[in-house]
Amino acid sequence: MVALCYTTFIIDETLTLTSNPSTTSQNAVSMSVVETKLRIDAYIEAVLTERIVQADKISSDYGQLWRTIANLMRAGGKRLRPYVTFLAYNLDGNHDAIEDILPAATAQEMIHTAMLIHDDIIDRDYIRYGVKNVSGQYNKLYEPYVDDRDERMHFSNSAAIMAGDLLIAEAYSLIQRCNVDSAQIAKAQTVLTEAIFRVVGGELLDTESAFRPFEQVDALTIATQKTASYSFVSPLTMGAQLAGMPEASVEVLTKFGTALGIAYQLKDDILGAFGDEAVTGKSNSGDIREGKHTYLVEQFYATASTEQKEQFAPIFKNDAATKDDIVQARQLLIDSGAKQATNEAIDSFATEARSQLDQLDITEDARLRLNDLIERCIHRVK
Amino acid sequence: MVALCYTTFIIDETLTLTSNPSTTSQNAVSMSVVETKLRIDAYIEAVLTERIVQADKISSDYGQLWRTIANLMRAGGKRLRPYVTFLAYNLDGNHDAIEDILPAATAQEMIHTAMLIHDDIIDRDYIRYGVKNVSGQYNKLYEPYVDDRDERMHFSNSAAIMAGDLLIAEAYSLIQRCNVDSAQIAKAQTVLTEAIFRVVGGELLDTESAFRPFEQVDALTIATQKTASYSFVSPLTMGAQLAGMPEASVEVLTKFGTALGIAYQLKDDILGAFGDEAVTGKSNSGDIREGKHTYLVEQFYATASTEQKEQFAPIFKNDAATKDDIVQARQLLIDSGAKQATNEAIDSFATEARSQLDQLDITEDARLRLNDLIERCIHRVK
Repeated sequence: MVALCYTTFIIDETLTLTSNPSTTSQNAVSMSVVETKLRIDAYIEAVLTERIVQADKISSDYGQLWRTIANLMRAGGKRLRPYVTFLAYNLDGNHDAIEDILPAATAQEMIHTAMLIHDDIIDRDYIRYGVKNVSGQYNKLYEPYVDDRDERMHFSNSAAIMAGDLLIAEAYSLIQRCNVDSAQIAKAQTVLTEAIFRVVGGELLDTESAFRPFEQVDALTIATQKTASYSFVSPLTMGAQLAGMPEASVEVLTKFGTALGIAYQLKDDILGAFGDEAVTGKSNSGDIREGKHTYLVEQFYATASTEQKEQFAPIFKNDAATKDDIVQARQLLIDSGAKQATNEAIDSFATEARSQLDQLDITEDARLRLNDLIERCIHRVK
Repeated sequence: MVALCYTTFIIDETLTLTSNPSTTSQNAVSMSVVETKLRIDAYIEAVLTERIVQADKISSDYGQLWRTIANLMRAGGKRLRPYVTFLAYNLDGNHDAIEDILPAATAQEMIHTAMLIHDDIIDRDYIRYGVKNVSGQYNKLYEPYVDDRDERMHFSNSAAIMAGDLLIAEAYSLIQRCNVDSAQIAKAQTVLTEAIFRVVGGELLDTESAFRPFEQVDALTIATQKTASYSFVSPLTMGAQLAGMPEASVEVLTKFGTALGIAYQLKDDILGAFGDEAVTGKSNSGDIREGKHTYLVEQFYATASTEQKEQFAPIFKNDAATKDDIVQARQLLIDSGAKQATNEAIDSFATEARSQLDQLDITEDARLRLNDLIERCIHRVK
């Protein structure tokens, strides 16, 4: 589920974020993505350690569920959502005390992990960040007790359902811990609910796209809800709402994040078919073999000739497609104009994002960073 | 999953709750359980209708997920958690404007439905309130698209996972809508998080009790977390926190709810083995045949003779146990003293609940109702 996790979202580690919880802004220190990760990781660790202790008091078997969550969260995650949340919080340059919203930035990771855990059940994936996810860990833990493979997987997935539920609750609770006005806390929670509302919508449509007739599925809708709203709009607007930014600006930021997120997802579709595997670390034939309903493929079916469609059909959604088949499918995506149309759409959404950005009254530093974000999203090679 | 839903929780429909959102307390109207249900149902309907409209704007397929949730919530639920929430809100007699906390009372039903939906996936149940639950409805909806039974069930369960996630988010959002101080809202959300933390713990232990060695499972811990904390303590303390009740009193109320909830669950265990099926509407042999790890059975293994255990073993957790076997198992539960020990425990927890109640400075009306709640929980015949 690429759309749910921008693991390929590359931000130069030297990118810095003005942050100064303890000194005056004249002495502001800078916080890079790497530093953000360290801060967020430490906070996650503190929260989960507390929960493990509480759960162990009930039963070490329950403590185990929290330990399993901790194992997963320690294994990976670039904490880019928190980074973007901090960035949006300080768009006006007057909110550099990131300590005040550290719990809400961490909440972004909690909800993200919750969604990944549930998403992995849906996708029947048992590895995440190169380690066993919650289902995967429990499948091992239950081995001495449940012999039957299907039974064991059912109980493992059950534990994973519960783990996700816990982390959704945790996300809301963390937002309450922020050191900002209660009205801002309420708005940040509304952002979270909206994010869940939208990502679940996108996830449902994405899941159903595996079996619904092609014409019933709309790739842009899925990209908007599952990627843009959740991974871009939510961190941006949560930061902005916590800072008490005017609603009109939050709306512009929403449009900015939506356009950027769609551009990001469309770029993902391009990389999924034309990326350099040695660079992306991901298959560039998987999407075609799985028959993934991308905007790119949608463009193909909208513009290709009957003959081109007939050539494409036996390769698309065919697990057994050969390397030569894939090369042919790629050429068809080019010849039909689908690749170009998709790249043009990426440019168009990036232009829209830039235009929204121009309307925001923010510091030059923030503008540079957000512009940089656009460029990195659309020019990334992995 | 009896413990998650007190459908057998009988409160006389004439039980009234002082409630008066629009007139002076001299003219206070009374609200019965039935009236509470009407109010809560109307509010649920309004919330879900709004969500259906929003989801339909994304895609009618997403709207369908919300319609499926609405179908389930319309089909059943006595709304006793909201009733108890209202009751706890007005313990001092000065909080009869229940409109102020109607959203939080409704949140109790949202979280309850979320847990039921996920619980049903875990228990592989597809019927709830006599109708198809979310998985069950989707299994029908996906019939034209997915032929393979297992595949279809996987996708149906996936939709149900998402539905539960949505309702957890909804519960937190609803609490934010209450017309009380933000500090009280924060405390009510903490109650919700605590409830989820505990019910998940109880659910995990309960699920694992199906395959873990008997001695690794503790029925009282499961009863405390899964039934008492979630179904009793949570509605009680949420109401109290929304009313701004002193922490010391909330603690007493927590002890009251815990003792009452455990008594309730133990009574459930008794009815599960000795209840009159014609009255309870539930099997009184299922628990024995399934090998349910109840407090009653725990008492049996703690007190029975070796011979009694040898007689019990081939019947317990034996799907094929005959009627005569069940009669024999029941007799063994009596002869060993397990039934008596369980009934004594029920009395003891009820006494503890009464003693906690005595420490609360509340109106006589509230005291009567809470006392009534104790009596109904322990003397119920269904």
